Amino acid sequence: MTTVPITETAAPLLELLDLAGVAVFAISGALLAAARRQTLVTFIFFAVVTGVGGGTARDLLIGAPVFWMGENRILLVCLAAALIVWLSPRRLWRGRALLWFDAAGLATYSAFGAAKGLAFGVAPLPAIAMGVLTACLGGIIRDVLAGEPSILMRAELYVTAAALSAAMVVGLLLLGAAPPLAGGIAAMAGFALRAGAIARGWKLPAYRR
Amino acid sequence: MTTVPITETAAPLLELLDLAGVAVFAISGALLAAARRQTLVTFIFFAVVTGVGGGTARDLLIGAPVFWMGENRILLVCLAAALIVWLSPRRLWRGRALLWFDAAGLATYSAFGAAKGLAFGVAPLPAIAMGVLTACLGGIIRDVLAGEPSILMRAELYVTAAALSAAMVVGLLLLGAAPPLAGGIAAMAGFALRAGAIARGWKLPAYRR
Amino acid sequence: MTTVPITETAAPLLELLDLAGVAVFAISGALLAAARRQTLVTFIFFAVVTGVGGGTARDLLIGAPVFWMGENRILLVCLAAALIVWLSPRRLWRGRALLWFDAAGLATYSAFGAAKGLAFGVAPLPAIAMGVLTACLGGIIRDVLAGEPSILMRAELYVTAAALSAAMVVGLLLLGAAPPLAGGIAAMAGFALRAGAIARGWKLPAYRR
Repeated sequence: MTTVPITETAAPLLELLDLAGVAVFAISGALLAAARRQTLVTFIFFAVVTGVGGGTARDLLIGAPVFWMGENRILLVCLAAALIVWLSPRRLWRGRALLWFDAAGLATYSAFGAAKGLAFGVAPLPAIAMGVLTACLGGIIRDVLAGEPSILMRAELYVTAAALSAAMVVGLLLLGAAPPLAGGIAAMAGFALRAGAIARGWKLPAYRR
Repeated sequence: MTTVPITETAAPLLELLDLAGVAVFAISGALLAAARRQTLVTFIFFAVVTGVGGGTARDLLIGAPVFWMGENRILLVCLAAALIVWLSPRRLWRGRALLWFDAAGLATYSAFGAAKGLAFGVAPLPAIAMGVLTACLGGIIRDVLAGEPSILMRAELYVTAAALSAAMVVGLLLLGAAPPLAGGIAAMAGFALRAGAIARGWKLPAYRR
Repeated sequence: MTTVPITETAAPLLELLDLAGVAVFAISGALLAAARRQTLVTFIFFAVVTGVGGGTARDLLIGAPVFWMGENRILLVCLAAALIVWLSPRRLWRGRALLWFDAAGLATYSAFGAAKGLAFGVAPLPAIAMGVLTACLGGIIRDVLAGEPSILMRAELYVTAAALSAAMVVGLLLLGAAPPLAGGIAAMAGFALRAGAIARGWKLPAYRR
């Protein structure tokens, strides 16, 4: 595996997307802790694990330094997410807030994870897998730790939305699109598909043989 | 830890065994998705996670580059496994197909994982553990994600078969046996033990104090 | 991330603490296998996974070589722990032995994990997280594999005790305290807090909005 360092120009965008992905996943983790009436420490633990879990797996797999080790800032984002959910009025998060934050994190992280994989010299198909796995791992770890049934076992479009986002960013980047454009289009496409699943119940056909 | 690169002569054999282990585990993952009436995307996810999960953990632990990152071929094997199970007539997989594929993957991956550990300069005992953990992790992750009770908690011979296979390949290689011979004998011994457990219900005694 | 190698003087202490953490966690894993009436192979598997799970995650995250790969000794400690629990009279482990061994492992591993993180150039906040996550991961993996409800979901002080221990060792080391002193004070503080939780039922307030 050749490890081409990330290009200078793409670095700030990738960093911003990484922080955004961390923040939305951290909030989704803290919201699950709130729904289960947990303590502040558990809020923080879920915010951190959900916030950085996917990106950590991605970095280990592609051979990059784990992105939150060298600085305090990323964990501060997770701590802030936990505190905001803990302190804010409950009606702010009522309804399907958790689902929508999770959807935003899914689409963002998927595009970002796939692009970072390509930037580190990973082949196209594993790069798409990096997007899917890292986008989904945060939520899967959160659900397994909380004893929730994993999203993987439902027919609802979820992993598919991450796959669309990851495949689109890889395709657009290989066709020569500028990273911000490719990432934006891909994340919006993935989010739209997931939004359809949440709002209209879009499903995949199940195996019936 | 000294990281001795894998010898030139053993490389093609190790690569073939790795692909074979991926294929059988990927099929076992897809068969579980089929048994649970899942969607094609879940078939693919289970095929990939079960197919490469064990080897991924092994490579991270021994400090090797993760084996499926630099090429498209290994994920194509997993995609093919998922599609074959999805499209093939159901009676082809009836009965205990899942158990037998899992057994073949267990014995193959265990011998291969231990041999690769030794090749990267790992000490004998951790090399045996590499064989056991990597052979068992694929199936354990698959079962945990599907919410199945883990094989670890049953008295049935399973981990033991992987341990036999891994210990035999390490012992034979340290005694100077040629890698193909050592791997073949070890994998057959582990498979035989697991076959006895499946066909005849061989068990270990449980703790009774 | 700069990876400053561990200082020569602190190395023997860190090594001893690592072995102690492995031993107590391995025993706690074997005791859970005993409580569930498992086989000797499952005793060994739980002893190894619980004994080295936390430290393995820590080493992967901070970019250190995985600590048990280059030698046979650490796995021998886990094997010995499994055998001792298997062979010893059951009344030796009656009552809350599992809880107390887990508490000792929690406080020790947390201080050690945070100190090792700092020694490898990790920033203070991620170093504290390294202590918490690695101290808690052993027990969490053990509970998830056994199908037990995770400690994370209870109001009981557990993760908090690990956080206290990790934060104290990081604070004391940054203030210039000698590593043995800092580690000893921090581990005792964490153990005291966890002991209060076990003996007196100390709890954190849960979310109630």
